[in-house]
Amino acid sequence: MADSEIVAGSPHGDAAAALHGPESPAGEHAEHPADLAEHIEALPMAEQLALLATLPPEEAAEALAELDEHVRVDILENIAPTLASSLVAAMSPDDAADILDELEVGHRDELLNSLDSEDAAEIRSLMAYDPDTAGGVMNTEVFTLDQNLTVDQAIAKIRGGLEETEIPYYAYVVDRENRLNGVLSLRDIMLARPGTRLSENIKGQNVIEVAATADREEVARIMAHYNFMALPVVDDKGRFLGVVTHDDVIDIIQEIASEDMLGMVGAGQDETVDTPWFDSVRMRVPWLLVNMVNSALSAAVVWLFDGSIAQMAVLAVLMPMVANQAGNTGQQALAVMIRQLATEKFEARRAWKAVLREGRIGLVNGCIVGVLVWIGVFLFTAAAPLATVMVAALLTDMLLGALAGASIPLLLKWLKRDPAQASSIFLTAITDGAGFFIFLGLATLFLLP
Amino acid sequence: MADSEIVAGSPHGDAAAALHGPESPAGEHAEHPADLAEHIEALPMAEQLALLATLPPEEAAEALAELDEHVRVDILENIAPTLASSLVAAMSPDDAADILDELEVGHRDELLNSLDSEDAAEIRSLMAYDPDTAGGVMNTEVFTLDQNLTVDQAIAKIRGGLEETEIPYYAYVVDRENRLNGVLSLRDIMLARPGTRLSENIKGQNVIEVAATADREEVARIMAHYNFMALPVVDDKGRFLGVVTHDDVIDIIQEIASEDMLGMVGAGQDETVDTPWFDSVRMRVPWLLVNMVNSALSAAVVWLFDGSIAQMAVLAVLMPMVANQAGNTGQQALAVMIRQLATEKFEARRAWKAVLREGRIGLVNGCIVGVLVWIGVFLFTAAAPLATVMVAALLTDMLLGALAGASIPLLLKWLKRDPAQASSIFLTAITDGAGFFIFLGLATLFLLP
Repeated sequence: MADSEIVAGSPHGDAAAALHGPESPAGEHAEHPADLAEHIEALPMAEQLALLATLPPEEAAEALAELDEHVRVDILENIAPTLASSLVAAMSPDDAADILDELEVGHRDELLNSLDSEDAAEIRSLMAYDPDTAGGVMNTEVFTLDQNLTVDQAIAKIRGGLEETEIPYYAYVVDRENRLNGVLSLRDIMLARPGTRLSENIKGQNVIEVAATADREEVARIMAHYNFMALPVVDDKGRFLGVVTHDDVIDIIQEIASEDMLGMVGAGQDETVDTPWFDSVRMRVPWLLVNMVNSALSAAVVWLFDGSIAQMAVLAVLMPMVANQAGNTGQQALAVMIRQLATEKFEARRAWKAVLREGRIGLVNGCIVGVLVWIGVFLFTAAAPLATVMVAALLTDMLLGALAGASIPLLLKWLKRDPAQASSIFLTAITDGAGFFIFLGLATLFLLP
Repeated sequence: MADSEIVAGSPHGDAAAALHGPESPAGEHAEHPADLAEHIEALPMAEQLALLATLPPEEAAEALAELDEHVRVDILENIAPTLASSLVAAMSPDDAADILDELEVGHRDELLNSLDSEDAAEIRSLMAYDPDTAGGVMNTEVFTLDQNLTVDQAIAKIRGGLEETEIPYYAYVVDRENRLNGVLSLRDIMLARPGTRLSENIKGQNVIEVAATADREEVARIMAHYNFMALPVVDDKGRFLGVVTHDDVIDIIQEIASEDMLGMVGAGQDETVDTPWFDSVRMRVPWLLVNMVNSALSAAVVWLFDGSIAQMAVLAVLMPMVANQAGNTGQQALAVMIRQLATEKFEARRAWKAVLREGRIGLVNGCIVGVLVWIGVFLFTAAAPLATVMVAALLTDMLLGALAGASIPLLLKWLKRDPAQASSIFLTAITDGAGFFIFLGLATLFLLP
């Protein structure tokens, strides 16, 4: 055993490995793969390559799986092809599929061709799944037992693997067609009546599983709902393919949260501070241009009333306040709805009740803010009609903002779009345009000679 | 065994239970506690109470732990005190502490006094931890082994508990003072040389653990980094207290993501569509008033230039475009930084590099958008000086917005505040105020006679 071995609740970094058998015993690891990856990321490229070449392939492969996407693509493009091939071969098939997906087609095929044909076939089959689905994130190294085995045969099979793999905590019980019919814990098997078949011990079980094509948000919702450690994934014929593990779900949830927050304001959905800056420019500019078109439309509304503004410049002073308050009100509603859609299922009836709830909140907040604004504008301008027009516009626009903020994510979802994408930009277009129009319109009707 | 038993990767709802022993065998559950909770939430109060009274206490307690906070507070306030007491007694201590924390002090003390004094003491000690810390989320039902046990004694101890509890997957090895010195999996113990002490088998282990006072965001970062199934929690003397499990971490990550998105726009950090609407009003109004004060300051900037606007109403038309674009640019930077702070540690040097990165992106995006805006304004007004002034203001304000958006979360964090709280509101104040000032100032200087 090495001098220093890092362990914790789970001594192995990869939960899937812990559940289904890591390929090397824990004692060999001087450093946890996640820490090793962090260490590698801080090195210049030449040293990264040199270090990976000296590490045992298993260890280097595990670290590679933990590296930032940009870093590992760079490494695989610059490393000796034979080393790249041995690293990919040492990875779990799902990690290998994820990494190969990031490479250019030519390089990817070259690497795949250099692998053992069985490994390559498995990786290719995993790469066929959309990375945003259960199939795209599942781990295929699972411990299955045929349901026709007796309890004693099952125990012997588990014991037989003990020397080279971790004890499986859950065994997936399948029939001859590899359909998943039950899940047994080690204790269930130990306590089962000797001589009985596994099929008798899983009778009545109602296994919760997802289709390989299920969206990863659905996977995350199920795992969070049931607190599962691993969720079985099956194909369209119910055949057992693999499991999504708790650590995959943490990544999925973090990614969804980032995508929502970044998407809402039109940044790239997978941007981080490590994204090359020009990629960020490329991802953000289209939405900034959409925003520009939107704000040009709002400007056109103001332009309709340029005569009124020339007569009464105070309108230009107060106009942004109306739009800004309504925008903020709408963003509050937007944030609540986006998080709701990210964390829970949401039937139509409940969704529209939530929109009404936001409308009510917007109206009441509009009244509270409106009273203070009326007092403020009156104290400042001594013009009660102006204060009244402003508050009427503010109240209307805040109500509209609340309803729009709550509805936009639902509408986007209904259109099968990402509920967060550019939602804040569309919201601002509505609250600005409507705010300017209502305020300047009312002012032109009631305040100007 | 019941007719229908719901299982999946992990047959038991609570991962901690699966790791450390559920109090009732899986076969007794007709419905998963999370599903039962969903079912209960849809019932009227009277039926909720009736159903809970008929369920076995264990099952009712597990469902209660899964219920929405508002629902379970209502239930505990209306249920018979003896039933409330038996439900709390049947819960895991960490769930009980969470639920009691939600009750009013008088009711909580009454319930605690009705419990067995040992249980009450454990719950009280858990309630002493801030709910936002490792101590506040940890599970105390862990399987520990004294390091002086021999391997054979350890195996006997594990076997002895087999009939009534789940087999522990990891055993936490402690010394006489209950300090955590190592973690062993069942396989490690099975394969260890018979006759050796556990202390010899954990030699060289470097256990990763957190202090009970560690922030839950820190806990989530460590668990996500290492992909642990459970993270040990220790007190200030290194004594082992419990573990934070993977399902707790999923909740923490979801809560942090919601808090950030909601906090950013000044909504209540724990709002959902189920929050009573008046609570939402109460939580949002203060930030809407802050926003109103901010936009009054921006309005004051416009007021400085009311003479210019009266002479040139087109300024009022274009002014919101400048502010809006800069606001959007800033929000993109804000979103990237908030997510970065939510998912990773972030040393000062890297943070300021990220601010510069955003500044560069803002500037380049400003140039791209600026060229198009120049052409648009020139086509529309045929006034090159006006187009030039607008683009100069736009470029400056977009750069400022990008730098402000990237800096605000860092500044808030440095001030020991939540990095997201009201950040969007402060950002808008900056981009609006500066945008109006620069645009109207330049126009007054260069465009007016």
